[in-house]
Amino acid sequence: MLHVIPLGGLGEIGLNAMVIACRGEMLLIDCGLMFPPVSSQGVDVIVPDFTHLRKNASLLKGIVLTHGHEDHIGALPFLLNEVKVPVYATRFTLGMLRHRLHELGVEADLREIEPRNPFRVGSHFTVEACRVTHTVPDAVGYIVRTPEGPVIHTGDFKLDPDPIDGLRTDLERWGELGDEGVLCLLSDSTNSERTHETGSERDVERTFERLFRDVKGRIVVGMFASNLHRVRHVLELAQKLERSVVPLGRSMMRNIEMARELGYLPGITDSLFVPLEHATVLPPERTLVLATGSQAEPRSGLSQLASGDGPLRLGPGDLVVLSARAIPGNERAVSGLIDQLLWRGARVVYPDLEPGVHVSGHASQPQQRRVLELVRPKNFVPIHGEYHHLHRHLNTARECGLAPEQLLLAQDGDLLAFEEGRGHFAGSVPTGRIYRDRFGQGQVTPEILQERTRLAETGIILAALVIERASLNVLTGPQLTSQGLNLDEQVLLTRVAEDARGFFLEMSRELRGDDARVREELVKAVRRAFRLYSTKRPVVVPMVLKV
Amino acid sequence: MLHVIPLGGLGEIGLNAMVIACRGEMLLIDCGLMFPPVSSQGVDVIVPDFTHLRKNASLLKGIVLTHGHEDHIGALPFLLNEVKVPVYATRFTLGMLRHRLHELGVEADLREIEPRNPFRVGSHFTVEACRVTHTVPDAVGYIVRTPEGPVIHTGDFKLDPDPIDGLRTDLERWGELGDEGVLCLLSDSTNSERTHETGSERDVERTFERLFRDVKGRIVVGMFASNLHRVRHVLELAQKLERSVVPLGRSMMRNIEMARELGYLPGITDSLFVPLEHATVLPPERTLVLATGSQAEPRSGLSQLASGDGPLRLGPGDLVVLSARAIPGNERAVSGLIDQLLWRGARVVYPDLEPGVHVSGHASQPQQRRVLELVRPKNFVPIHGEYHHLHRHLNTARECGLAPEQLLLAQDGDLLAFEEGRGHFAGSVPTGRIYRDRFGQGQVTPEILQERTRLAETGIILAALVIERASLNVLTGPQLTSQGLNLDEQVLLTRVAEDARGFFLEMSRELRGDDARVREELVKAVRRAFRLYSTKRPVVVPMVLKV
Repeated sequence: MLHVIPLGGLGEIGLNAMVIACRGEMLLIDCGLMFPPVSSQGVDVIVPDFTHLRKNASLLKGIVLTHGHEDHIGALPFLLNEVKVPVYATRFTLGMLRHRLHELGVEADLREIEPRNPFRVGSHFTVEACRVTHTVPDAVGYIVRTPEGPVIHTGDFKLDPDPIDGLRTDLERWGELGDEGVLCLLSDSTNSERTHETGSERDVERTFERLFRDVKGRIVVGMFASNLHRVRHVLELAQKLERSVVPLGRSMMRNIEMARELGYLPGITDSLFVPLEHATVLPPERTLVLATGSQAEPRSGLSQLASGDGPLRLGPGDLVVLSARAIPGNERAVSGLIDQLLWRGARVVYPDLEPGVHVSGHASQPQQRRVLELVRPKNFVPIHGEYHHLHRHLNTARECGLAPEQLLLAQDGDLLAFEEGRGHFAGSVPTGRIYRDRFGQGQVTPEILQERTRLAETGIILAALVIERASLNVLTGPQLTSQGLNLDEQVLLTRVAEDARGFFLEMSRELRGDDARVREELVKAVRRAFRLYSTKRPVVVPMVLKV
Repeated sequence: MLHVIPLGGLGEIGLNAMVIACRGEMLLIDCGLMFPPVSSQGVDVIVPDFTHLRKNASLLKGIVLTHGHEDHIGALPFLLNEVKVPVYATRFTLGMLRHRLHELGVEADLREIEPRNPFRVGSHFTVEACRVTHTVPDAVGYIVRTPEGPVIHTGDFKLDPDPIDGLRTDLERWGELGDEGVLCLLSDSTNSERTHETGSERDVERTFERLFRDVKGRIVVGMFASNLHRVRHVLELAQKLERSVVPLGRSMMRNIEMARELGYLPGITDSLFVPLEHATVLPPERTLVLATGSQAEPRSGLSQLASGDGPLRLGPGDLVVLSARAIPGNERAVSGLIDQLLWRGARVVYPDLEPGVHVSGHASQPQQRRVLELVRPKNFVPIHGEYHHLHRHLNTARECGLAPEQLLLAQDGDLLAFEEGRGHFAGSVPTGRIYRDRFGQGQVTPEILQERTRLAETGIILAALVIERASLNVLTGPQLTSQGLNLDEQVLLTRVAEDARGFFLEMSRELRGDDARVREELVKAVRRAFRLYSTKRPVVVPMVLKV
């Protein structure tokens, strides 16, 4: 019996974490986080609930990583704080992970692996990385040989006939496995709704060449620093155009530095780069700014340029390329960023105007179909996507001729069991999302999030009362103060305080000895008084002070 | 000298309000509101700042409305509370407005007009409505003849060769005006970035026919109740398919009722409709639900169906069509809604899967070009759009051969002056957005919004202190309580209170007489203590109670 247990990534984009378990041993594939939309009630990162792993810590024999993006490795430092097991990944992925671990002061047993080079994890798993093309170097999927048969996990992949690094998705290997017989295919669903083939990164390269050719001023490219293939061809293009590169944004600087250290930016020399402080003295037509902030994140490179706060001032003649799509939830912020940049007088090019400035890193429907037809798995579990993405991917598999009993539409926490070539739902394990405040400090529960939402929607009234301990007389109050009330409500507060005092004093003296009861009545009195004037219901927080 | 003064709609989608002023008289075209994204810090509607109109109330001679959508008429009740002038609109638009005014108890002098039938406003304006196709019946643009020449305001328009009501945009009239010479064209920019022609509403009709044909269960169409052309063809289709229609959602019921009263749903009889209470006993294959909630608004028709709270339960065999695009800011909520509906087992079709289930109500780039070429205005001001939409529309005009001095990229509050056929920027007037809480109650200033944002991001600590009036001794406190803090911070509060007491008691006795100073020091003491344990900075609200 083999178990496949998604702990994250099946029901959302991000949080990717998949457990393969057999005969008392577990293997974890990826351990990612998720970013909330820009400015989300103070929450900076979301990580999967690891209860299941924590409970079964002794069974976990290893963690394998598909590639170095945060949605695949970002939650690992939090997990490694609690669970000590070897982590296997390719060279570049380890490079990105090492940095994160170092930042957070977490130790780990890291082991470098190579595609097509099988290794053992525990006594029941033989794992083999399988090269895939994505937007970052050294991305792989995994073939996990188990006592019940081989499982293929594609990781994030695309089918690019001519990738920047020349390394194509290893379809051949998947095909060989298909011939051999695959127990279960777990395949990336991100673009399952897109019916056009996902284009090649070369298309972006060509678009950039065309756009950059006649620019007289500065060129600014705003993009994810994690899209290292694109970073690479922009740097090469800058070199060709004899423009010095100004990396803008912390993660851009860090990723370029790391990629160079690891040898993933061949031919890029030190002399290409100019720090921001010196960029202002360079002629604009000799400058290319490579900036973070394609999602309009505050304090990012692009936001700085848009606001005009930094030393570099954009203007007519300059070109800004937004080389990324807005992630759902960030559309408004990105629109605002574009407006600000246009307002500075620069030419701004973004995917809605010029689709060629961005291509996705994920295979689309026809390409997903190709993989399904190649692997012809006994069972298929769509992974990496919201429910509707998984659902559409399942339909694609159905269209490929898979029978209903071969299709498993699983969600986070589902326990899938496979025996004798067949899969079925066999229960569930605890899962969920853990929200964390800025810089990963402090856990925010769903209840706290709800509290914050209410604060933001209705504002808050604080009601304080001073009671004499001995006599139980109310010495003063309720005194009210507020935050976030609308203008009309603020004006009401004095009247509300008076009325609330009236209501409150009706409370019998005996009850005043019971602190919890006093607080409760205080809230009731304020609410009742407020309702005389308004239909809104602000949060009321009571404080009873005894002297 | 003629002035054109956008008070809203140039820099955002919504808030449309345009002043035309000449020789001491003003005409206002449209008076719209804007909805924030679903769940936005309690703010339900945004209206333009009317300071300029209020200050010049005696000069305002009339208000003309292009069509009955909220982003064109929704702010009018607020304005009419302060300014009494005649309001001119076509029959259906007046019908929609009457309803809003009635709801809010606002009186108005309403005057019905007809296309191609000029009327006077004040002594200097001759106004003529000009039929346009949009998503709602009886939509018009305006031709305003002024002492400086005619101005064309397109309103929201599309070029549909075969509209549902047979009434095409009156390009002929715009062409005639063009021959005559147009001082200024103000034209809808919403779709200026779309390079494909906006399709005909008939495309949606055909898609629906194809999708509905073989459905064995219920059919649910989720859409804007304001898209009355679409409501009409869905009703006609239901009639043809012999399905009873269940209107779901307040605005859907209201709009259908109003459209029928006004005769805009010919051939639709009472017997077609079934109230929700009776819908459960109908065979699913005889039912069609027409629901609000395409933006995943809480408490809307679709949300009810998705949550399974209502009497109608969706399941396998049922079809749900989401016939609208997510408005920027609502994408996440809409994705979640789709997931919920899929999870119920229904088939869900939405624009990403099947583009034919929705077409826009706005002309796109090639169609905007056609209007520009037809009118050949002396001056062009793109209207209705965010800055990047206006910017792209301006480029289209440039591509049509208009010279730079004919192009005016204006924003809300700009004062455009036209004399002797030429336009220029001549200053600005006060503008802005007024945020209003639920149901339009209570004004929320940008400062209050900021307060709410901070509350939601960091949470709040309330610090109360009791001081004896006579001795200025601290009797108790600071006592702390909180809302929205993360778990780690909540645990800290006792220690923070102790430390803060320490800091606070260092305050010299003389200063304790100054209430403002005491509050200030109290906040400082709490902040200082909090910083000993955390880098976060929650809002600290002080309360000093004297006994």
